[in-house]
Parts: sequence; C-alpha cells; structure tokens
Amino acid sequence: MGVVERDIDDLPKNPANYTALTPLGFLERAALVHPTRKSLIHGSVSYTWQQTYRRCRQMASALTKRGVTFGSTAAVIAPNIPAMYEAHFGVPMSGAALNAVNIRLNAQTIAFLLGHSQAALIMVDQEFFSLAEEALKIMADETKGKFKHPILIVIADENCDPKLLKYALGKGAIEYENFLETGDPYFPWKRPEDEWHSITLGYTSGTTASPKGVVLHHRGAYLMALSNAVVWGMNEGAVYLWTLPMFHCNGWCFTWSLAALCGTNICLRQVTAKAVYSAIANLGVTHFCAAPVVLNTIINSPKNETILPLPRVIHVMTAGAAPSPSILSAMSQQGFKVTHTYGLSETYGPSTICAWKPEWDSLPPEAQARLNARQGVRYLALEGLDIVNTQNMKPVPSDGKTVGEIVFKGNAVMKGYLKNPKANEEAFSNGWFHSGDLGVKHPDGYIEIKDRSKDIIISGGENISSVEVENVLYQHSAIFEVSVVARPDEQWGESPCAFVMLKPNVDASDKVHLAEDIMKFSSSKMPKYWGPKSVVFGQLPKTATGKIQKNLLRAKAKEMGPVKKSRL
Amino acid sequence: MGVVERDIDDLPKNPANYTALTPLGFLERAALVHPTRKSLIHGSVSYTWQQTYRRCRQMASALTKRGVTFGSTAAVIAPNIPAMYEAHFGVPMSGAALNAVNIRLNAQTIAFLLGHSQAALIMVDQEFFSLAEEALKIMADETKGKFKHPILIVIADENCDPKLLKYALGKGAIEYENFLETGDPYFPWKRPEDEWHSITLGYTSGTTASPKGVVLHHRGAYLMALSNAVVWGMNEGAVYLWTLPMFHCNGWCFTWSLAALCGTNICLRQVTAKAVYSAIANLGVTHFCAAPVVLNTIINSPKNETILPLPRVIHVMTAGAAPSPSILSAMSQQGFKVTHTYGLSETYGPSTICAWKPEWDSLPPEAQARLNARQGVRYLALEGLDIVNTQNMKPVPSDGKTVGEIVFKGNAVMKGYLKNPKANEEAFSNGWFHSGDLGVKHPDGYIEIKDRSKDIIISGGENISSVEVENVLYQHSAIFEVSVVARPDEQWGESPCAFVMLKPNVDASDKVHLAEDIMKFSSSKMPKYWGPKSVVFGQLPKTATGKIQKNLLRAKAKEMGPVKKSRL
Repeated sequence: MGVVERDIDDLPKNPANYTALTPLGFLERAALVHPTRKSLIHGSVSYTWQQTYRRCRQMASALTKRGVTFGSTAAVIAPNIPAMYEAHFGVPMSGAALNAVNIRLNAQTIAFLLGHSQAALIMVDQEFFSLAEEALKIMADETKGKFKHPILIVIADENCDPKLLKYALGKGAIEYENFLETGDPYFPWKRPEDEWHSITLGYTSGTTASPKGVVLHHRGAYLMALSNAVVWGMNEGAVYLWTLPMFHCNGWCFTWSLAALCGTNICLRQVTAKAVYSAIANLGVTHFCAAPVVLNTIINSPKNETILPLPRVIHVMTAGAAPSPSILSAMSQQGFKVTHTYGLSETYGPSTICAWKPEWDSLPPEAQARLNARQGVRYLALEGLDIVNTQNMKPVPSDGKTVGEIVFKGNAVMKGYLKNPKANEEAFSNGWFHSGDLGVKHPDGYIEIKDRSKDIIISGGENISSVEVENVLYQHSAIFEVSVVARPDEQWGESPCAFVMLKPNVDASDKVHLAEDIMKFSSSKMPKYWGPKSVVFGQLPKTATGKIQKNLLRAKAKEMGPVKKSRL
Repeated sequence: MGVVERDIDDLPKNPANYTALTPLGFLERAALVHPTRKSLIHGSVSYTWQQTYRRCRQMASALTKRGVTFGSTAAVIAPNIPAMYEAHFGVPMSGAALNAVNIRLNAQTIAFLLGHSQAALIMVDQEFFSLAEEALKIMADETKGKFKHPILIVIADENCDPKLLKYALGKGAIEYENFLETGDPYFPWKRPEDEWHSITLGYTSGTTASPKGVVLHHRGAYLMALSNAVVWGMNEGAVYLWTLPMFHCNGWCFTWSLAALCGTNICLRQVTAKAVYSAIANLGVTHFCAAPVVLNTIINSPKNETILPLPRVIHVMTAGAAPSPSILSAMSQQGFKVTHTYGLSETYGPSTICAWKPEWDSLPPEAQARLNARQGVRYLALEGLDIVNTQNMKPVPSDGKTVGEIVFKGNAVMKGYLKNPKANEEAFSNGWFHSGDLGVKHPDGYIEIKDRSKDIIISGGENISSVEVENVLYQHSAIFEVSVVARPDEQWGESPCAFVMLKPNVDASDKVHLAEDIMKFSSSKMPKYWGPKSVVFGQLPKTATGKIQKNLLRAKAKEMGPVKKSRL
C-alpha cells in the first residue's frame, strides 16, 4: 500500500505476450483444426487444409532454396486456380512479397511491373505463358539484356490445352508441381518479426499514368481477414466461390479470411452465370464477391442457365464500382442477399460497408435498393472515414448534398506506393489517405459516392455526377450497361454523353429512334441538364477487374468533337 | 527498370496508415451505424448505442475533469448492470485502466487490491457500498489514514432497497447519474497512442497467495473481441445475456465484442435458471457464456422454471472449469449448443476452443460430449499453444497420455502482473506463458486438461487427475456437484477424497450407504486406485466466479487426518 509509482503501463513486451500479426498463422491453425476438410475445389482437383498447409510450406521452402525470401518479390500470373491461392500463403511464408498480376494486362504493362517490382520469380498459368514470355522479351529488349531473368514456373491446369504446357516446358519453365516437390512439406516457415513487413504488392490499373505498386503489410491483411468475416457474418466453414479475381487486391483479403474460417474455396477459371449457378447448386456455395458488372451478367442470364429459386440464401458482396439500385433490386428479387461495400486496392479492398438496418426491411424494394446503393459506413478494420473539403480538410456537413473527397485513416490503409515518394506524399497528405473519389455524407452518416474526381461532368458550371445519371439510365428497359462521360459542348463546356450496350433481345435496327427514346426517358427522370446530349451504342471497354474504362470513353467522346449549339 | 534498391519493405508508418488498435472504436462505430438499436437492457431500463456512446463519453469526461486519466486506475464494484458495461468504455476512454472488482471478495481482499492498484476512484453498486466502505476503513487503519481517499461514486439500481442508496449518499458518495452529468456527452475521447497501453486490471482470485493484478492492453482486447465473434459464429446484432460476470476477465472480452457486433447486452443482476429462461423467452437472447456450475443449475432447474423446447438455438460458451461430459450431454439434449473453451484471466478469457467437427455429428451423444469436454485447439487470437515437459520445455507427444504443462504465446497473453516482477519472471519463463495447468495432447491435436498442477493427486507414486475422477462421479444419479482432492493416506501417501453435494430430490438419510454406493460405482467405472477412499457430503465452497475452492477442501481433507491403512 506504500507503493507510489504509477506503473500500470510499465510492463514490457516479451516473446510470450507479443507476436507480429500475420494471416499466415490462420493456415497453420486450419490444418490443425480441420485437417481433412476441403480447403480448395477446382474441377476434379481438390485439397484438404492439411494438404494446402503442406503445399504452401513446400512452396516457401522451394522459394527459399532459390534465394527468394525476405526483400524479394515473386509474381504470379494466373486466374483463380489453386496455385494462385497457395501463392497467397507460400510466397509470404518464404518472407517474400507476392505480386499477383492482373491477367488482362498487356505484355508492355506486365513488363513494366515485373521490372518495377524486380520480380525474382514468376509463376504463370500455362494459358498466360506466352504473355509472360512476351513481357520478358520486352524487358530484355529495353535493358539490352541487362536484367536478372526471373525464375520461370509454369502452372498446368487440366482445363487448358496441353500443348500450351508443352510449349512452356520446351522454353525451360519449371512445372509447378515439380517446383513444389523441391520443397520441404514440413518447412519451418517463419512469422515476420515485424507485422509491418510487406505481404503483397499489387499494381493499380493505371488508367491515367504508370501503374502504381500498392504495398500491403501482414498487420493489415490479418485485420482485414477478420473484419471481412465479422461484418459479413461469414462463419466457420463458409463455402466461398472465387468469382472475384484473387489478383484484385488479393481477393479483398478473402484469401486469408477463408483460412481463418477453415472454410472451403471454390475456384473458378472463368466467371459465367452458368458456372456461378452450377457451383451454388452442386458445391454448397454460401458466399461470393463480385463487381456489379458480374451481378449484371447473373441477373440477365438466360433462364436455362439459372437455378431458381436458390437452394439457400447466397451472400454476395459487391464493390469495384457503385452498383445501380436496379441491379441491387433484381439480385434481391432472385434471393441473393447483397452487401454493398466500397474500397480501393490502397485500402486492402472494402473500406466501407452499407450496413443493412432492420428498419429498411419494411420499405419497398426500390427504396431498399436506393439505400443499399450507398457506400455506407467505415469497415470494421478501418479507424477513420470522412468526406472533406480538400481546400481546408474540414468535414462536409451530413446533408446528403455537399460534395467532398472521401478520405480514410487506419490499419487497413496501404504502406504506400512502391518507389513513388511523390505519389505517397499526395496520397497521405494532411494525415489522411486521399481516395480521389467524391461523395456526400447523408444525415444518417452513410456516405455515397458521387464520382471519381476525374469523372465529374461540369456543364454550364454545374457539377453532374456521371454515376447518378447512370443510375437513372439503368432503369431503362433496353439498357444492359451504360457509362456516362463528359463530351465537349460548344454551349455548356461539357455535357453528358452516354455509351450504351443494349440488352441482347432489343431490336437495335433503329438506333436513332432508340437514342431519342433514351434521351426522352432521361428528361422525364432527372434535371434537364443532367440528361445525355449524345448516345453511343456498342460494347463498353473494361479493365481486367470489370471496371468500365471511362478514360477510353472520354477520349472517344473528345474525338467525336463538341456538341453543337442547340438551335432551340 | 534500373532501380537496384530492395525497397519493398521500406515504407514508413504515417498517421493515415497506422492507428493503435483499441476496442473503444467499436463503440463509436456502433453509435454511428445503429444509433437507435438497443445496446443494453436491464429490467425496465434500456439504452441505445447512441445513448451508450454519449454516456461513456460523459464518464470519460467526468473522470478526466477529476484527474482520473492516463496512469490512473478506476475501480468498479458491481454486478452485471449497465454502469458496469459503461465503465468498460468510459474508463479507458479517459486514458485510465479499469479494475472490475469481484463482488464476492471480502473487505480485507478488496482493501488489498484497491491499495495495490492505487484506485483513484471507485464506482460501487448501492448493494455493495458497505463492503467498499469497510474496505476503505481497513485501508485507513492500515495506513493510519495516510492514503489518498478515492473518489466514491454510488450506482443506484431500481432492483435494490432505496435505503442502501440513501445511506451511501449520506456518507458523501456521488450518485452515478449525477456524476455522469458533470461530463460532456461529446467529449473528444482520445485513442491510446500506443496499443500496448493498459486497458484493464483484474485480480486473480488468489486461492493460494495474495491476489495478482493481471494487466491487459488495448491491442489484446481488440483482437479478442473480434476472435470471440469469429470462432463462435456470433454475428452482427447478436443478443447476449450477461450470465458471466463482467468482473471476470472483462466478461472474457465480450463486453467489447458486443460493440463490434452492434449487438444487444441483456444485463442480469442475479443469475438464476428462471432468469435465464425468461430472458431467452422474452428478450430474444441468442448467446450467453457461463461456468459449468451455472449450466448445472440450468439443467437441474425445476420444470416450471424452464421453457422447453427452446424458441431458437441458444449458443452457450462455457469455461472456467472443465465441464463434465454429463453436463454437456444434458445441455445438448435441451437444445443448447455448447461451445467449450478454456482460458485464464491472464489470457483475456478463452485461449482454447473445442472446435466442433462435422464428423462428430453422427456419434452417440455420450461420445460427442466426451470429445467436446476436451479443451481443444488454440483460440484465433492466440498464436501459440502447446503442452510441454517443464523440465526441458519439449512438447509432449500427441498420445493423449503424456501429461505436461499447458503453455501459451501470443497477443492474447497479458502484459504481466502489476508490481510483481517475481511472478512475471516465473509466468513468462522460456518464452512462453505458463498456465500452471496440466494436460495431454490427443492424436487429433486437441488438448485436454488433466488438472491444475496443485490439484493432481499423487497416490502410491501414480498421478491421479482429480478432474477425471470427478467426470466419472458426475455420472452417478445422486450427485449434483462433486469435487475430488487429495487426502493424506497412511498407505499411499495421498488418496482421492470426494466432496459431494447431492441432488435436492435424493434421500440423504443414510449417508453411510450413499457413500458406499458412490465408492462401489467408482470401482466399476475407473482404475481401482482412482476411486475415492473417503466421501464427504455437503455444500461446496466456491469462488466469486463459481469455481470450487479446492484449496479449502484440501485443508478440510487434511484436517480429517490420514486415511488409515486398509485391513484388506
């Protein structure tokens, strides 16, 4: 009782009470707790958690033997196949960082990012071997051969033409299974000493400039893996369908969530509505994530490819672009429970969630969809979310009207961009991470995206949110997909131009009439100046992750020349 | 491409991408996401998450105004009432550490721990005011008045005699609601700068020596709050009944889990089977935690106090002592889904979980209960669990037989004992936290406790697990509760002595016959030398958390003198 020190905080860390957070431990635990449960199913191939743990340690061991370890990066170029999942554990278990490369990039871009990340090793799916080969050739040419050729591993897949594999092996690539066999399945993988250690590197699609390398750490990956489960109510043993590419921000960290939940991963080489419904019907799928464009495909798929009513509630998380209320409403009518999230590669995937409120249950479906189309509240792993006036960093009022920039803060924000101090300085200015997205805060605290800063259309001095115009156009019965961008306008500076892909069953013979109908529809549904002054029909260009490439459409709109002054 | 630095790990922390982990942020988020959802229900009193957030900030503000902030501790002496829950946020929001005091301790012990922790402020439920008063008097006497008298707050409760409140106010205590009103409901509470900062202090029951002050930190509390939800499949909006005292290791961190899940807390001043069933029937309870002794009360409660069949699956987490297979089996037959966990105050509550395996579903109930009575595998928030030979720290084989000490490692291990370097050195020796519990590792990797080191009975050189003997005795139809300890034995050194509390309906007139029957039952069910050589009937002494006080029973057995040499 005579003690006077205030030592309540004076107890140091020690090896027993402090461990660096890492999602890799989830795999070790899954192998212990459910060794015989299926970890991965891919066509006729499947593994148990015990096998996956062994295979990942083999990979880590094989990498370490070849010097790929702390400080290195290893790239993987593959769709959602088991090797891709294994790389999410095997590579960081060696100490190296994983760079999961978007398979829809061209050789030139892949050459850039392999060089930028100094990939020490590349694992490439046999279908994409020639793409990797081309990228390496570009690197050789550009450096006049003065670059360290990465070790090349080719991944076979029973669903591919065996000739492709043969070709790759002929070029000296090591076959993936043979590569694993050089490793020890009981390799004593090491936890990172510091949870700030890098776990992955992922390149942004770089619609405007060179791709930026987003570096993530073990701490953030661990926290996101748990947050995904908690906010989505995804429980132990969940069966998860890989519609979302794992190369897209490590599958929003669900790669690691599945190990934490000892769940089952259903791989999918190619996403079609038929494949999605088939996995639901035959493999017990309970959850999947997908961009709105995939949801659009699902709800518009021919009857004979669907299995309705669904055999159970299927939980769908969507993000990547704002889903229109029409898509949300149609999904919900089919029995899918859609959770809407929003995030960036820089925030480990989802950083907001439109948390459903019980009081919405009694609203009409359209009102529900409208509320659910908002981006929502901060994700559990994120500590700060706000919308600010970037002039003074003051929060905008919660009035649902005042537009500001969406900013984030917390442990689920990237370490930074690789070798890009200027971009880091901009992204992290004033103690926040700047998303570059514009939005409003509603009176209930939920945020809603209005546009990417560069996607706003400024017409006659008024800001027009291209997203809002699109949301209205999606209600038009002939429209399958639409994207609205600014087109130069003689009178207004800019005016909205709609690029439209029609539904397959629409008679597209009279395009002029259709365009007029769409414009008439618009003027009945929104402020006159929001309505598109031009409508263009055709396929919409997309990024590898299913995002419509507005930069290409903007360029096209510009090429079309300015809208002439109205004679009215 | 000419870059040669290996800078994949070279990106520093900044205010946008690194925040100290703290469970306090969960409350802020719950208030934003579900402001009008019920946070707490206590009889006719209830609050919403918005109100709870405001009240906790008021508490933090009121504390700060009185100098209770970083470096201080504030004590609360109360059962599971709303103020107790609020203190779990309000106190750490001021920067201070919370000491939730076990209300069943005596004044002498409370005096010790208020002095040891240098409590700057005490919040005490009106029913326990005189206990606190007595403790303060002891402190005054022992220090000859030379101690800083803590600020005294009395908490009113409509379920208590108003005279008690009046008495406390007459003694100068500040009424809790008046105290809150001195605080600002919009107080800008500060996150700790370091997640290693202390959040709570809790004293072990100290059955053998002075109570030890277990200090926990924000990091561990955050991780446990999420792990609780993930391993138990406890989802957003869960309705949780507070049968487990919050002063017991902060309610195993479920205090903070509930905020993370935006769930509803049902308070319970006194735990009875009737109150539990009533909350299930009327308040939508989905989950509760309880020591096996509470489960025993529930399954043995009179028919008219039950509501069976249950209106929904009720998830029960049990720990605190190893539940006997009989209790587990009976709970399961009533429709409760029991998850068995095991842990210590030093490990933030649960540190292992007997994760259920689908392959157990088809086993007979007794086999299921036997498997589920094991302590299981490591909790998600814990990175290391093993059973070691303490002589050489080598893991014991997974043979289900070799006994060793259970040791832990990871972020859900306490910072240490307050002002107790010697105890810390012992507890943290060789890079592990030593539980002091003895157990075996089964071939499936699940651990099973055999005993506390001090509870092992050594008879004729053979170790007897008192827990295993108890598990068998629980199958005897007359036994309500049983505890087995060592009694000195002329021939064998020690032999098992069973202290038995009979079921209410058992005819206890012929104790000699009953004792013989129990011994006969034992010899038919276990190795002869395990069987109790003495049986004593009566109430079993218990700690505040419902643990049977084996130290007292051991003393009693010793007093009885040694078992005489058998004439056989």
